[in-house]
Amino acid sequence: MRQTQLFTKTSKQLNQEETSANAQLLVRGGYIDKLMAGVYTLLPLGRRVVDHIEQIIREEMDAVAGQEVSMPALQPKDNWVKTGRWDSMRDILYTIKDEAGHEYTLGPTHEEIVVPLAKQFIQSYKDLPISIYQFQSKFRKELRPKSGILRGREFLMKDMYSFHATVEDLDAYYERVTAAYLRVFTRLGLQDVTYLTYASGGVFSKYSHEFQTVTPAGEDTIYICDGCRLAINHEIRHETPHCPSCGKDQFTTAKAIEVGNIFKLMTKFSEPFGLGFTDASGARLPVIMGCYGMGLTRLLGTIVEIDHDEKGIIWPEAVAPYRVHLLNLSKDSVQADAAYASLQAAGVSVLYDDRLVSPGVKLGDADLLGLPQRVVISQKTGTNVEVKLRSQPDSQLIPFDQLLATLTTPNV
Amino acid sequence: MRQTQLFTKTSKQLNQEETSANAQLLVRGGYIDKLMAGVYTLLPLGRRVVDHIEQIIREEMDAVAGQEVSMPALQPKDNWVKTGRWDSMRDILYTIKDEAGHEYTLGPTHEEIVVPLAKQFIQSYKDLPISIYQFQSKFRKELRPKSGILRGREFLMKDMYSFHATVEDLDAYYERVTAAYLRVFTRLGLQDVTYLTYASGGVFSKYSHEFQTVTPAGEDTIYICDGCRLAINHEIRHETPHCPSCGKDQFTTAKAIEVGNIFKLMTKFSEPFGLGFTDASGARLPVIMGCYGMGLTRLLGTIVEIDHDEKGIIWPEAVAPYRVHLLNLSKDSVQADAAYASLQAAGVSVLYDDRLVSPGVKLGDADLLGLPQRVVISQKTGTNVEVKLRSQPDSQLIPFDQLLATLTTPNV
Repeated sequence: MRQTQLFTKTSKQLNQEETSANAQLLVRGGYIDKLMAGVYTLLPLGRRVVDHIEQIIREEMDAVAGQEVSMPALQPKDNWVKTGRWDSMRDILYTIKDEAGHEYTLGPTHEEIVVPLAKQFIQSYKDLPISIYQFQSKFRKELRPKSGILRGREFLMKDMYSFHATVEDLDAYYERVTAAYLRVFTRLGLQDVTYLTYASGGVFSKYSHEFQTVTPAGEDTIYICDGCRLAINHEIRHETPHCPSCGKDQFTTAKAIEVGNIFKLMTKFSEPFGLGFTDASGARLPVIMGCYGMGLTRLLGTIVEIDHDEKGIIWPEAVAPYRVHLLNLSKDSVQADAAYASLQAAGVSVLYDDRLVSPGVKLGDADLLGLPQRVVISQKTGTNVEVKLRSQPDSQLIPFDQLLATLTTPNV
Repeated sequence: MRQTQLFTKTSKQLNQEETSANAQLLVRGGYIDKLMAGVYTLLPLGRRVVDHIEQIIREEMDAVAGQEVSMPALQPKDNWVKTGRWDSMRDILYTIKDEAGHEYTLGPTHEEIVVPLAKQFIQSYKDLPISIYQFQSKFRKELRPKSGILRGREFLMKDMYSFHATVEDLDAYYERVTAAYLRVFTRLGLQDVTYLTYASGGVFSKYSHEFQTVTPAGEDTIYICDGCRLAINHEIRHETPHCPSCGKDQFTTAKAIEVGNIFKLMTKFSEPFGLGFTDASGARLPVIMGCYGMGLTRLLGTIVEIDHDEKGIIWPEAVAPYRVHLLNLSKDSVQADAAYASLQAAGVSVLYDDRLVSPGVKLGDADLLGLPQRVVISQKTGTNVEVKLRSQPDSQLIPFDQLLATLTTPNV
């Protein structure tokens, strides 16, 4: 992509409304645009990052036999009355009433839709287990949305729901999904700062689990066990003096962002909808369920919180909108055009800064946008080009004809 | 995908509520599920078809320099008041009011969002032209949704918006997008039955254009010119006695589904939002706009209306959820398992009917589901396998070891 053709431009202006680093950098870089509090547009660069995050999650959900669907955002009130959540979640449900007097909500989650849906296809134990997921915009009334895109009123989620004949089968699958989640965070470069965290389980389970990414920008407080790599959420800290995993009682307090949560729903939603199955002996039993959420726009913001410096974003290669930022600082564009063409021909994704602006502006924007590899072509470098990783301070000069080989070798 | 693992099952039951062939077949095949009138879930098979449609559209929009974004569904009332459409579109806008008294709508279209967004990045003629598109769930109040997924209350659209310095530039781009749309319909197998159709242009343009696919299930009436390959919509038939393209006055009447529409918005939306640019002489001018819609869930239904017979769906290969339906009619699964493994290893997408049900059920479901190529393995075929195109009545027997070569040759 030639930067002269790109829809967006970078901005130097700090936005007074945005107090978080993620929103400042994403807005200034032209990754996202704020329509209103808690509601953002994904601009072309941001859309590319989210596409990469989505594809990583999709691969890992498919690897645990998840089947992708798309459920509606618009949901009938009746389903929510049936689970009691039309009232209990009143504070966060957007509601709509049409001329005919019918009422709807915009789903912040999809148990009320997926359970009656599953009921159509699950009759016997032979139909179990099954796991269904989707990527979808969720809606949640927040009177005071904050923290940029970390807590929004409209946000992109992956939500998965699993259905089992026995608690043992749910337990085993829950472990598989836990491992899949950890693989997602590893691929997103968040593995060192993301903790599997015990949280309140509600009526049906002792614990649920969150995946918490440690950063000063976090709204949650977690207690990281000094004895193992697990944490407990502040909500259960009081009643949980010992680590539920290793039993130790020394913790380190940290601020964190909840980037995912998994929950053993057991029969909480199967019962109100009468979702049952016939076991091998012919007995009728309720289906056992689990649910598994992960916030995509929240992950976008979290990655920026974790991976930035005072100059801008530092994208992990797996999610960067483009891998290479090619900067032409020469007076003519002959050499840079040739480099752009050869990188494109080799299938390397490149953002090419072909604008007629000063070298300082280009170098500053490259740091702000944060693509993993910067390639500078200028009079100064002669027949060489300068290659620099955004994550490293030092650059190196390499002969122009070795550019392709250098960039297609990992970690240069 | 093994059919024993597939979330959905086929159904023989005709649904009394669904009067259209598309909804009957898609629901019976387990492609979609109706949550309520005009609101459907895309099930795993349906999701795969829509993914393929989406990718074809994306490639063609990228080829005309479209840049993909994701704008919010939740939109502030103020933007809609500014264009006068809060009142004029009142009948189709879902509205939401929160505790703080703020009002919102769920976007049935995005001019009210994209124009103020573009204003942030368009200052001079050098920033033009630009073209922005998205795939997104749209919402539209329909008191009597009908025709299955052809006219919904929540539906998936591709909407693109272009911005130009001159009418001539818009005209040229409009022609490019027209050609891109025709390429999409060709790739979807709809080229022979889809007509570029003149429709009412409103105040700012003489005509807009629709893409109408002829089928008895259509809700629109079009008049196809006997002299050229264009049509006119019934809305303008009265005032348009002659074909606007070739001037002839003989038409054939047909029922059709509107699968896309393109519109020269001119300055209709730039003006209320003050979206202007500075030209080369320093003069300030309003930006000229075009918009280009295409309904994805509607295309899903239209393809089924066009491509089905009394037994079920006949998917075009470009959008089929899987390319091959492998049916094991043998008592053991040795040969079928081997065929499944070798097709998967070769990257051929396969749905493998490994269920313990009768041959008649399997053959019936294969016709209902409509995958392009059916491969039958049975005692009867011995060391051969039977290969049949869903679109053709005749099958052929081929040696097992030639299966892969046969299936990877186009149009066997």
